[in-house]
Amino acid sequence: MSENIIVIGAVAVGPKAACRFKRLRQDANVTLIDQDELISYGGCGIPYFISGDVSDEKELRSTSFHMVRDDIFFQDDKGVAALPGTKAIKIDRKNKTVLVRKRDGSEKNLSYDKLVIGVGTRPKALNIPGASLGNIYSVGNLNDAIKIKQMITTGKVEKAVVIGAGFIGLEMAEALADMWQIETSVVEYCDQIMPGFVSRNLSRMAQHRMEEGGISFYLDESVEAIEGTDLVESVKTNKRTLPADLVIMAVGIGPNTDLAKDAGLDIAPGGFLMVNERMQTSDPDIYAGGDCIQIKNLITDKPGYFPLGSMANRQGRVIGTNLAGGDARFKGAVGSFVIKTFDMALAGAGLSVETAKKEGFDAVGIQVAQFDRAHFYPEKEIIYLELVVDRKNRRVLGIQGFGGECSGMFARVNAVASILQYHPGVEAISNLELAYSPPFASAMDIINALGNAAENFLDGRYTPISFDGFEECWQNRQDDDCVYIDCRAYADARVFEEKYPDIWKSIPHNELLQRMDEVPKNKKLILVCNTGIRSYEAQINLADKGFENTVSVEAGVAALKQAGIDFDTKS
Amino acid sequence: MSENIIVIGAVAVGPKAACRFKRLRQDANVTLIDQDELISYGGCGIPYFISGDVSDEKELRSTSFHMVRDDIFFQDDKGVAALPGTKAIKIDRKNKTVLVRKRDGSEKNLSYDKLVIGVGTRPKALNIPGASLGNIYSVGNLNDAIKIKQMITTGKVEKAVVIGAGFIGLEMAEALADMWQIETSVVEYCDQIMPGFVSRNLSRMAQHRMEEGGISFYLDESVEAIEGTDLVESVKTNKRTLPADLVIMAVGIGPNTDLAKDAGLDIAPGGFLMVNERMQTSDPDIYAGGDCIQIKNLITDKPGYFPLGSMANRQGRVIGTNLAGGDARFKGAVGSFVIKTFDMALAGAGLSVETAKKEGFDAVGIQVAQFDRAHFYPEKEIIYLELVVDRKNRRVLGIQGFGGECSGMFARVNAVASILQYHPGVEAISNLELAYSPPFASAMDIINALGNAAENFLDGRYTPISFDGFEECWQNRQDDDCVYIDCRAYADARVFEEKYPDIWKSIPHNELLQRMDEVPKNKKLILVCNTGIRSYEAQINLADKGFENTVSVEAGVAALKQAGIDFDTKS
Repeated sequence: MSENIIVIGAVAVGPKAACRFKRLRQDANVTLIDQDELISYGGCGIPYFISGDVSDEKELRSTSFHMVRDDIFFQDDKGVAALPGTKAIKIDRKNKTVLVRKRDGSEKNLSYDKLVIGVGTRPKALNIPGASLGNIYSVGNLNDAIKIKQMITTGKVEKAVVIGAGFIGLEMAEALADMWQIETSVVEYCDQIMPGFVSRNLSRMAQHRMEEGGISFYLDESVEAIEGTDLVESVKTNKRTLPADLVIMAVGIGPNTDLAKDAGLDIAPGGFLMVNERMQTSDPDIYAGGDCIQIKNLITDKPGYFPLGSMANRQGRVIGTNLAGGDARFKGAVGSFVIKTFDMALAGAGLSVETAKKEGFDAVGIQVAQFDRAHFYPEKEIIYLELVVDRKNRRVLGIQGFGGECSGMFARVNAVASILQYHPGVEAISNLELAYSPPFASAMDIINALGNAAENFLDGRYTPISFDGFEECWQNRQDDDCVYIDCRAYADARVFEEKYPDIWKSIPHNELLQRMDEVPKNKKLILVCNTGIRSYEAQINLADKGFENTVSVEAGVAALKQAGIDFDTKS
Repeated sequence: MSENIIVIGAVAVGPKAACRFKRLRQDANVTLIDQDELISYGGCGIPYFISGDVSDEKELRSTSFHMVRDDIFFQDDKGVAALPGTKAIKIDRKNKTVLVRKRDGSEKNLSYDKLVIGVGTRPKALNIPGASLGNIYSVGNLNDAIKIKQMITTGKVEKAVVIGAGFIGLEMAEALADMWQIETSVVEYCDQIMPGFVSRNLSRMAQHRMEEGGISFYLDESVEAIEGTDLVESVKTNKRTLPADLVIMAVGIGPNTDLAKDAGLDIAPGGFLMVNERMQTSDPDIYAGGDCIQIKNLITDKPGYFPLGSMANRQGRVIGTNLAGGDARFKGAVGSFVIKTFDMALAGAGLSVETAKKEGFDAVGIQVAQFDRAHFYPEKEIIYLELVVDRKNRRVLGIQGFGGECSGMFARVNAVASILQYHPGVEAISNLELAYSPPFASAMDIINALGNAAENFLDGRYTPISFDGFEECWQNRQDDDCVYIDCRAYADARVFEEKYPDIWKSIPHNELLQRMDEVPKNKKLILVCNTGIRSYEAQINLADKGFENTVSVEAGVAALKQAGIDFDTKS
């Protein structure tokens, strides 16, 4: 008799597991059930459907060759029986059945030999007054997205408030503000956007770009209530009231694992399903994958959580292979990510410096700025990378970057993302071999420059100052004992020197060795250049002459400007 | 007494070693000598100077902050004494001196405590009649480049012949043909462009793009003589005579190691200097780097040769660190590369399938085509990747790719380039974790699809046919016992089916399971779709029904078109 496989959940991991298995075992019966009518869609594409980049939700449910992935497609093209509108009610592990409720309300037991659970998550909601008013959405599924887009396209949204400045919050904010020109505010409880994922420095760059795009940010601020009669009218934080026709609640996601829990499968403390490397739950005949499971963080070797469509797809294939008797493994994740912020991108892998510290590493983040291609090549742009390293053993814990959407930043982050699982030391980054020719990279590529800067820091030759540090010094410039040494060409430094003659001094780096006697003694020296190269060299030259109290502005004036830090001569 | 370091050669590795060392040891004396007057330039940028992308040769000799790197710059900015126009004649290792000849012809002995050799290569020349005629250049240095550009800008070049279709040959061909619209021919001894670096499939795509850009290729053809009176007038091959005002000789490079050889340093069989991981020659006080040395190929673990500015720069830093008493290592290279071919790029790392076979691996190359970003995202393009794997142990030996200059191809190649040193298996590619969101990648990214395809091949589920194989079948379609099953939608297949009713049959993949009885028996089935996904699935469905004699056109019609393979209904 043919084997029966039932797959619960038909968004990402489920369809992948079903189709892979069916390709390997065409004699078997595979049934794919989902409580929703819309199945097998690219959930990560929802913000781009709302933004208008993707005009029709059907595109999110279609193959690359434009076939809509509905039950007919699964039957004809894949030989998989798909049952949309079918909710799994109960798993009976002893009798190996799943009780399902169909569209018409009727219930039925389906027998399985092996079962796959890929039921995803449910969005968290804030437990605050007004949370159940109309026009508050969490973008948890495609149905929500369709409703939001309908509101927008019928002109019902003038002001929107997004709660949460993580991935979904930022993607949704851009979707609303960019093409639709909706007045959009983002409220975030933490003091930066993308908390946990990038450093303050990088977060400030991305935030500044989004502010230029018309989005307002209220950080370090908590939402206390949502106000309105039937529909939302405003969002009340601990500091202000923001009018809103639409609220996007993007405050995180929680596990959707009641079904699994009721069946007695092992559940991790956070509520997510536990699986082994073969993607088996505590019942070897039941597999699970996607956003409802916990997987290993390959940096910390602790349990981790990485809810991404890319994880789900790869896990689905592993499950499909193993269902067919194979031995595929999913070892965990390093946590790679990328998010578009208008024409720029913020990406990373591994741990951010703050997260690494929380995990107990003696972590430091070193940032560099450099052109993504040869500096003499006409098409190029400055990109920003940050390497997170452990001071104790020089191990690389993470990389994050900010740069143009089509810049070389993404390639650099991916290159390091790929090797993080091998626990490289910082020297592996200094010597990382990327493909080189001038239209694509620099001879000393930014990725190597990043490793070099981290080495120089660890070896005590390089002492940077962060944006926050620079800003604090600059705001206190009247009282402070700081002098700014501008290592750029005089033409770049002049306006500053003229406006701030007491504290801003132009000494181009190529004149520094000759003009050492002009360097103020007994002051803290803040060394500045455009990207941080000349200020680093100046720091070394100065240290050699006994000036130990120096800092080099990391990634230089280019980065300060990118972060919107106001210190120019107009201020 | 301060230490004396002499660095012979001031293009790439030399200046880097000198400056890094000087930063670490500011008390030491560093002297950088070069026989040329032009020093510290981006030699890899020469084609872009000639093309006009870089307007002034000074840009190739400038820092990113626009300072020309001449002797004054090295003195003021770096504290390094640079002596252009100073030729090293002889190294006396016993007395630790270098005899140099200065601009004025006078000779002098310079003492060293440690010495660095970074003298690069000299271009090979064909030993054929006419090789010493005027207007034959090898683009070996910036002086040649300046002369070529002068010829072009003064309108002296209407027809050019490039001998050799490797990196320099192709870059130069594009430089001449693109902006200057010079009638450019490339003659290559091998039967493909970029021999040794990419498969025939990928080479045909890049060649086709360059042909569209106006360049003519004469492959599998050898140059027998260069004809002319004083200046070159034509190039005679074994098959034709090509008129030419300018000939670019790009037939490889040879070691420039006479000086080192005379000094008794260990030289490898190919003529290149041998160094250890610390970049020391057989004399521990003499370091060497850049194009004149041999380094380990990290794929084969045999001696390798990787003449690239990026290698030289990283080696220079290693040398600088070690000169200062550090212990930096340069372990070898996997051979990453990228070359721009008009608006497209060809890139790779590790071994090509042919090279791998020559090295004794049981190698196979598996190719896939897929969008670089989510297929529903509006901005995306199909890119092509090939994975080279060892059938015996499933080890990944190399990756190569072709795609748009700004596409995601480059990021994918770099990601695999980065891990090749760790000797990954094919499963590491199926599960490689790149940063994902729809504007940057697919949920099942092309890199994972590539690993999956290779796995499916190795597991006997996928039997592809190459472009050459397809073309041969197609050309013999009258006599052949092949039937083409078109797995695309009927709308795409119709014109072919109507024109070739006997051999071309439309069975869209989603109808295949129902229409199995229409599949011709006892024929070789050539399965076609747009990118190879549906034809792969069809192959599996057919195998299940007993059709074993099938091949799937790798990377599909999209790839055939990209390679300019003429099989459309107009033919």
